[in-house]
Amino acid sequence: MKIEVGTSYYPENWTRERIIRDAELMKNAGLSYVRMGEFAWSHMEPEEGKFQFEWLEEAIRIFGEQGIRSVLCTPSAAAPAWLCKKHPSILRMDRNGNKAYFGIRHHTCYTSKIYRKYVKKITTELADYFKDDPYIAAWQIENEPGATPFSQCFCEDCQIEFRQYLHKKYQTIEALNQAWRAQFWSGEYTCWDEIELNELLDNQISCRGLETRRFRSRIQAEFVHFQAAIIRDKMPDTMIGTNNYCLSDRYEVFSSLDFAGNDVYPNYRSEETMMLPYINKMACTLYSGLKPGTPPWIMETPPNPGWPMKDLTKFFFWLYAGYGYNKIFYFPWGNAMTSGEKIHLSVVDAFGNTGPQYESVKSLIAEANQVLAPYPELPLPHSPCAIIRDHDAEWMYGGCKISWLEQYYKMFCCSYISLCKNVDFAEIVSKDTDWSAYKLIVLPVQNHISKSLAEKMKNFVKNGGILIMNGASGCFDEYGNQTDCIHPEHVNDLFGLEIGENMPCNANPPVFENNPEFYRKRPVVKGVLNGKEVRGTFSVWTSYLRLTGAKTLLSFENSQLAGLPFCTINDYGKGAAIYYNANYIDQELCDQLIRFATEKAGLTPISYPEDVSIIKRGNLAFLFHFGEEQVEFSTTLRGKNRLGNALHQDKIKLSPQDIALIELETEQ
Amino acid sequence: MKIEVGTSYYPENWTRERIIRDAELMKNAGLSYVRMGEFAWSHMEPEEGKFQFEWLEEAIRIFGEQGIRSVLCTPSAAAPAWLCKKHPSILRMDRNGNKAYFGIRHHTCYTSKIYRKYVKKITTELADYFKDDPYIAAWQIENEPGATPFSQCFCEDCQIEFRQYLHKKYQTIEALNQAWRAQFWSGEYTCWDEIELNELLDNQISCRGLETRRFRSRIQAEFVHFQAAIIRDKMPDTMIGTNNYCLSDRYEVFSSLDFAGNDVYPNYRSEETMMLPYINKMACTLYSGLKPGTPPWIMETPPNPGWPMKDLTKFFFWLYAGYGYNKIFYFPWGNAMTSGEKIHLSVVDAFGNTGPQYESVKSLIAEANQVLAPYPELPLPHSPCAIIRDHDAEWMYGGCKISWLEQYYKMFCCSYISLCKNVDFAEIVSKDTDWSAYKLIVLPVQNHISKSLAEKMKNFVKNGGILIMNGASGCFDEYGNQTDCIHPEHVNDLFGLEIGENMPCNANPPVFENNPEFYRKRPVVKGVLNGKEVRGTFSVWTSYLRLTGAKTLLSFENSQLAGLPFCTINDYGKGAAIYYNANYIDQELCDQLIRFATEKAGLTPISYPEDVSIIKRGNLAFLFHFGEEQVEFSTTLRGKNRLGNALHQDKIKLSPQDIALIELETEQ
Amino acid sequence: MKIEVGTSYYPENWTRERIIRDAELMKNAGLSYVRMGEFAWSHMEPEEGKFQFEWLEEAIRIFGEQGIRSVLCTPSAAAPAWLCKKHPSILRMDRNGNKAYFGIRHHTCYTSKIYRKYVKKITTELADYFKDDPYIAAWQIENEPGATPFSQCFCEDCQIEFRQYLHKKYQTIEALNQAWRAQFWSGEYTCWDEIELNELLDNQISCRGLETRRFRSRIQAEFVHFQAAIIRDKMPDTMIGTNNYCLSDRYEVFSSLDFAGNDVYPNYRSEETMMLPYINKMACTLYSGLKPGTPPWIMETPPNPGWPMKDLTKFFFWLYAGYGYNKIFYFPWGNAMTSGEKIHLSVVDAFGNTGPQYESVKSLIAEANQVLAPYPELPLPHSPCAIIRDHDAEWMYGGCKISWLEQYYKMFCCSYISLCKNVDFAEIVSKDTDWSAYKLIVLPVQNHISKSLAEKMKNFVKNGGILIMNGASGCFDEYGNQTDCIHPEHVNDLFGLEIGENMPCNANPPVFENNPEFYRKRPVVKGVLNGKEVRGTFSVWTSYLRLTGAKTLLSFENSQLAGLPFCTINDYGKGAAIYYNANYIDQELCDQLIRFATEKAGLTPISYPEDVSIIKRGNLAFLFHFGEEQVEFSTTLRGKNRLGNALHQDKIKLSPQDIALIELETEQ
Repeated sequence: MKIEVGTSYYPENWTRERIIRDAELMKNAGLSYVRMGEFAWSHMEPEEGKFQFEWLEEAIRIFGEQGIRSVLCTPSAAAPAWLCKKHPSILRMDRNGNKAYFGIRHHTCYTSKIYRKYVKKITTELADYFKDDPYIAAWQIENEPGATPFSQCFCEDCQIEFRQYLHKKYQTIEALNQAWRAQFWSGEYTCWDEIELNELLDNQISCRGLETRRFRSRIQAEFVHFQAAIIRDKMPDTMIGTNNYCLSDRYEVFSSLDFAGNDVYPNYRSEETMMLPYINKMACTLYSGLKPGTPPWIMETPPNPGWPMKDLTKFFFWLYAGYGYNKIFYFPWGNAMTSGEKIHLSVVDAFGNTGPQYESVKSLIAEANQVLAPYPELPLPHSPCAIIRDHDAEWMYGGCKISWLEQYYKMFCCSYISLCKNVDFAEIVSKDTDWSAYKLIVLPVQNHISKSLAEKMKNFVKNGGILIMNGASGCFDEYGNQTDCIHPEHVNDLFGLEIGENMPCNANPPVFENNPEFYRKRPVVKGVLNGKEVRGTFSVWTSYLRLTGAKTLLSFENSQLAGLPFCTINDYGKGAAIYYNANYIDQELCDQLIRFATEKAGLTPISYPEDVSIIKRGNLAFLFHFGEEQVEFSTTLRGKNRLGNALHQDKIKLSPQDIALIELETEQ
Repeated sequence: MKIEVGTSYYPENWTRERIIRDAELMKNAGLSYVRMGEFAWSHMEPEEGKFQFEWLEEAIRIFGEQGIRSVLCTPSAAAPAWLCKKHPSILRMDRNGNKAYFGIRHHTCYTSKIYRKYVKKITTELADYFKDDPYIAAWQIENEPGATPFSQCFCEDCQIEFRQYLHKKYQTIEALNQAWRAQFWSGEYTCWDEIELNELLDNQISCRGLETRRFRSRIQAEFVHFQAAIIRDKMPDTMIGTNNYCLSDRYEVFSSLDFAGNDVYPNYRSEETMMLPYINKMACTLYSGLKPGTPPWIMETPPNPGWPMKDLTKFFFWLYAGYGYNKIFYFPWGNAMTSGEKIHLSVVDAFGNTGPQYESVKSLIAEANQVLAPYPELPLPHSPCAIIRDHDAEWMYGGCKISWLEQYYKMFCCSYISLCKNVDFAEIVSKDTDWSAYKLIVLPVQNHISKSLAEKMKNFVKNGGILIMNGASGCFDEYGNQTDCIHPEHVNDLFGLEIGENMPCNANPPVFENNPEFYRKRPVVKGVLNGKEVRGTFSVWTSYLRLTGAKTLLSFENSQLAGLPFCTINDYGKGAAIYYNANYIDQELCDQLIRFATEKAGLTPISYPEDVSIIKRGNLAFLFHFGEEQVEFSTTLRGKNRLGNALHQDKIKLSPQDIALIELETEQ
Repeated sequence: MKIEVGTSYYPENWTRERIIRDAELMKNAGLSYVRMGEFAWSHMEPEEGKFQFEWLEEAIRIFGEQGIRSVLCTPSAAAPAWLCKKHPSILRMDRNGNKAYFGIRHHTCYTSKIYRKYVKKITTELADYFKDDPYIAAWQIENEPGATPFSQCFCEDCQIEFRQYLHKKYQTIEALNQAWRAQFWSGEYTCWDEIELNELLDNQISCRGLETRRFRSRIQAEFVHFQAAIIRDKMPDTMIGTNNYCLSDRYEVFSSLDFAGNDVYPNYRSEETMMLPYINKMACTLYSGLKPGTPPWIMETPPNPGWPMKDLTKFFFWLYAGYGYNKIFYFPWGNAMTSGEKIHLSVVDAFGNTGPQYESVKSLIAEANQVLAPYPELPLPHSPCAIIRDHDAEWMYGGCKISWLEQYYKMFCCSYISLCKNVDFAEIVSKDTDWSAYKLIVLPVQNHISKSLAEKMKNFVKNGGILIMNGASGCFDEYGNQTDCIHPEHVNDLFGLEIGENMPCNANPPVFENNPEFYRKRPVVKGVLNGKEVRGTFSVWTSYLRLTGAKTLLSFENSQLAGLPFCTINDYGKGAAIYYNANYIDQELCDQLIRFATEKAGLTPISYPEDVSIIKRGNLAFLFHFGEEQVEFSTTLRGKNRLGNALHQDKIKLSPQDIALIELETEQ
């Protein structure tokens, strides 16, 4: 087992001598990869049709000869000046005709036919030129394709493609009007040309808003897929990935790629929050779930993220390793001499001088090679608990009310935090993955529940799973409109209840603190969970429930709903389905509910401090202490600690940011 | 006497079966009206010139046959897609040429000649089709015409009409330059085409800003008036109104209509403020003053406004009734299946199922019918105190300084709150109404005082009225420019003083709290009112006063003005005129000043708690308790309580949100 | 010695009678100047090519005959309506094509060739008409030319001129690409037409951003220079100046003018801050440094700035006098009748009536004439301490990181405040002035240090000066790109150290307070200064230092840098060079460091209260007490107090806002 380390490199910025020197430094530090080319279009194609790749080829060879293989990138993230000047229509344009301008990266539109033509041309030339290069290890498509404000593009190509997308999906304008219930607010269309893309934050016509988001996600995925296909055609056996694909359906885009690249910048968070366990676990776990079973890559992460207080490079290196990453790329190798990335934390400085970061990366690689050498390739970490991250559900949820647009994420986090507190490590997966390996699944508000999803939910519970769902789930159709049937559609028997009318609770912010004063003015729910009385508030939405078999876990204490059920459990097959009747609940209440569900699933909630994370890959247990105070706790883990000094008889003592790597006596 | 209840309904969204079912439910609940059609243009005219009203006619008949009459709306609030596509020039456009887009309601411009042509056509067709329909009770023009951001439209039609408005008013460009004193900052025009509409918040050229506001108000009124004229032509005897006409001169627009429709959403306010007495009194009272003597309508109000904590439907129902509304429309009957109004509080749910709201409305109607049956049509409530709400004064005031744009409203509220605290119920009226029924009138800053207004003020006081005025009143001409004459113009003898130079007091925020620390750094005024020493601060503006007959009530305690008069009273005829020399004063000081004025007017300030409101219509006294604590107070009200359990010997005890309806033994 | 007083006047707004009356009032009050014409274009040229100056000539004569001479302004700040209508291209335009509109002043573009043509024409006509007028004392070009949002103009002329500016500077596109290291992020240009002006706040292409700022500054300066040249051509001996030239390089623009006009509005600040000593000292001192040796003018300042609490006219009058201003213009004489300047504090009111302000100005002039009569022309105040204000350094600093854009000014203020606390009065000068008169110079971050600046710095220290520098100075080239050489470039020997790699410290806000809690989470530095232990934090940036001769003053207490030097001193020639390794330090730490440097420079830090300022012009010492509490302190000043009652044996007692004017027995 080996963790391979790479770095980002920009040969277009440096002299041959500097490249040679850098390659030697990298070899000396034990690096395995360089990633190159992602912003080099103007250097690859200095004028239209005149391609020059020799400088890149030479760099690849210089590195290759030092044993460092290249991850080559397509340059579509930064169109050159001559192209923007010649074809201004490729620039992103807002609904008022205001165009992005050259020099800010991602200034072009993914939909633009002309832009795609030029991207196709240079990608083809690039793949063709390098297809037999022995030093190329993998390809990255684009760079952070999710970082573009593409969702704010309203260029003519976007409008036309949107209409074609709708035309293909609905076939006739009458079908669209009917599906969208378009007579509402005089919204009926008479022909496709009348339809415009929705503004990002406008949800007055919610179906148009939902389809706009689906369309943009599709286009963004296609933009990566079509480039990947060109590479694949020339190099059928290479590895292809991309990095940081947000604002669209990540599961869709990575489905056609070989690996998911994760750009993690712990130091972009505030000093106050960068060491919170759940933030780091979520950052690592999200990308493991994009291609289940395939190790994700850390495509970018800074050296020395704890600068200036502590050097946390080692902590994060092992954290990534523990969470399943076998490849870690530091960004950048050296700082740029100019512009927006002039002053970063970098492995060497802008002039190629080594310093603390270089030394720290070098010794880390040496240590990791030594520590991990005895072990075979480790399996990825696995949890019996998962939470579903579903983009279509998020878009539909956001479309209900303007004020709800950012709430799906917060709601997701609330449950995820509770999972971390109770089971330490939980997986984040798509609703389309195989659920059979899990014992507990949290499914945040799923306004639309299709027949097939309902079937999957029932099978999961029938076979012994514990499922938690909340909010107005199963109340809408696939267009996000209300459905006149028993709610939650298709799964009312699974949950043993019927959800009544949708009732907004004047958009109050979610409450994550136990504030007695607040309780007097707000609806409160209460009950007994895990042997103790619990109380809490909820927000944004609720409803009347009619139980048809479920048992009450929590009920309303006050308000017009006093005495009615709020949270229920229904035994179904070998498992049980839990439901709570709101979008949010207090964090503490959520913690208790997840604890209850964990035990119901036959799992034992963790007994070690929340600041500690323990994760297993095969017979290795990785221990991390995120906190600022020394902790000591009992453990059943038995084995030798291969990293650090933490004792572990029956107690483990960890100092702040301590790491331990225990070779388990038996796989536990 | 009967309170008639209606609801909003959208037959274009529902099947015939559903409409039949809803009509039965409405009849069963005792409803009298449905309001329909206000967003149904695309369903009324699915393509240009092809009108279909049969579906609407059928709905009207279904309701009519259940005894429920229709209020029909013109559909001009939501132009259909085909019209926007064919004539993009009808869309609102900002000064930079950015157009509104289809799907957000009110996306069109009120000035647009083309839009008016289409509105005229469909309104004419609609009126013609339904002119003999026996089930039509009334018409509503547009929907919430004040809700449009029309003031941000700068389309070509707006610019042209503005120039014509100015041309007609000033006749020659020289006259305009002279009236506007346009040589200031090189502002002289040489022809009409050089003049552009003012940006909403730009007051650098204050005359242009003032005329822009007057122009927009005029256009908005005309847009309603021309539609009303079409209906009136076909149905000379029908009732015509509209609802929520803000951002322009409400008194002007309603002058040509038969009733004022008020959309009141108590739950749009925060939970913290929705039960403040003065907010609710103001919401009710403002619309009573729009057409004095004519009962206003609650055109929209939600069922269950206190959801989820308390069901306040009954409280607000009787509040509206007490304040003179004989018709109350709940919005909506059932939720929409889609888009922006998917999750409201509604009478029945989206699928037509009845629940708590339905039951509560139903029992309320039954109870009201029973309780009110013994009484004849009740007179509207009347107060001997009034405050003047004047739009032109507001615009002129706002144009003085950028920072003053929002202050008129706050200043108005400060006086209104003091009135509530002292006399419970005060009327809000236009300066053009008949003032003879009042004993006390508050006239907030009136920068321009015309001769006729001055005459009216003098007559009012001469005949025994007490008049309170403040700020730089009577200092400007009708264009909002300074006038070189004795200030306040035309009324200096009425107030017995001359206002000196306009002096800004570095735009400090108004102070509504008695903060001793603050007093040391700010100008303070003091005096004796109601037998006790009072002190307070003021803000934004003041001046030197020269008294020519007035007596000092309050004088400056410190600052450069120490010892000079701040607030004065002048006996005039049988009454007196009070003036204070600032835009704002502290709330507590204002309370004392209004108390003083109240007693001066021969009225007895209320002795019951501020959280209680008592309002009389004929021999019925309506009592409301807005507060959260039980109160008990003495009263001279004698009679039987027809509603609720509140005792009333010589004391009345009211629980939170209690209502009482006392049949007075003698009209008191 | 005489302080001459003037005022702003707008004869275009008034009748001949009013002008005559005003002139008499001015004479009666002792005024010497009127400033006229700066917004009168529409009155000077009512239609294209038709010039009328007779009204202005008459006003000048009326005033002149009363002994009041005129400062005539060019009217380019407010283009008339006919010109904007005829040539819309002269209006400022943002990058999206949105144009400024008529009526807001400064609505036109300084680059516009057409606009310059019209400005040239009217300026020529104006100068020609008045060139022999005996009553003209001086000219003002434009009005507050820095107040325009010109930096947001992207009109075609701006783009073209920017390309020409670059073409001229770099000669070839290859040279530009090389200087800008343009291959970064695909930024290479192939022809000049591809280059667009940078958005103000975009720093992704930092060289383009820096050159955009330099270009705009140049254009703004040229706009003033070309007008000045026209006047100078006709009236070689007149005085020419302008006022409030910000947002560009003030030193550049005033280099070609005869005097610097300063518009100071103390009452534009909040009441809380308007009397802070450092704010007022900085406001006065900045403009003295623009043309060293030449007395600056107060071009606009309000009468009665402390209104309404205290009349501070006298305090500020003498403050200006003490700080070197011999001419003070009050703005305005009388309020406008209309628009944005309707309600100001003015000398007389809008109708020409005199009141407190007039009386206060009148008696002030009389008193000043009497008090100052015995003295000859006083020399300007001088300090042995200076701080460098460098615009190019500010722009380059801001271009490093988006979050740094506003930090240069705050960093500057931190040092300036420390100087005030230690030496009361410090000069603010350009790096290009003669430094030989100073003993202590603070040089805020100078990212680029040219050879000539390095030489100047070395000479200054060699000859005994103490120089304080901080941050990443000497690390960049003239284009703002990193330089591969020993840092700080050219001056590492002067400071006796080498600055290592640029290290950002997660953009924390600067800390101006001593917060122990905060210290635990942040890097802290400590040392012994002035005989006592000091500690503090720093922010935004730091680095590793290698000392090659310097001695450590402060070192890091914790963090990865613990034990390394933070602040150093290096003896060099007869002086010493101090360096601290961050952009900001805590205010208190900065105070101590400046105290240390002051003593090192052989100066004695002040022992009187910080709220007091003592400034000397020749044998007159001006004393000002800014504070709100009476103070008493010892002093070595000996002499008679010519103003006020403050005692001064060996102690001086000053009440709040007291002024004293001590005729020193010997020049001290």
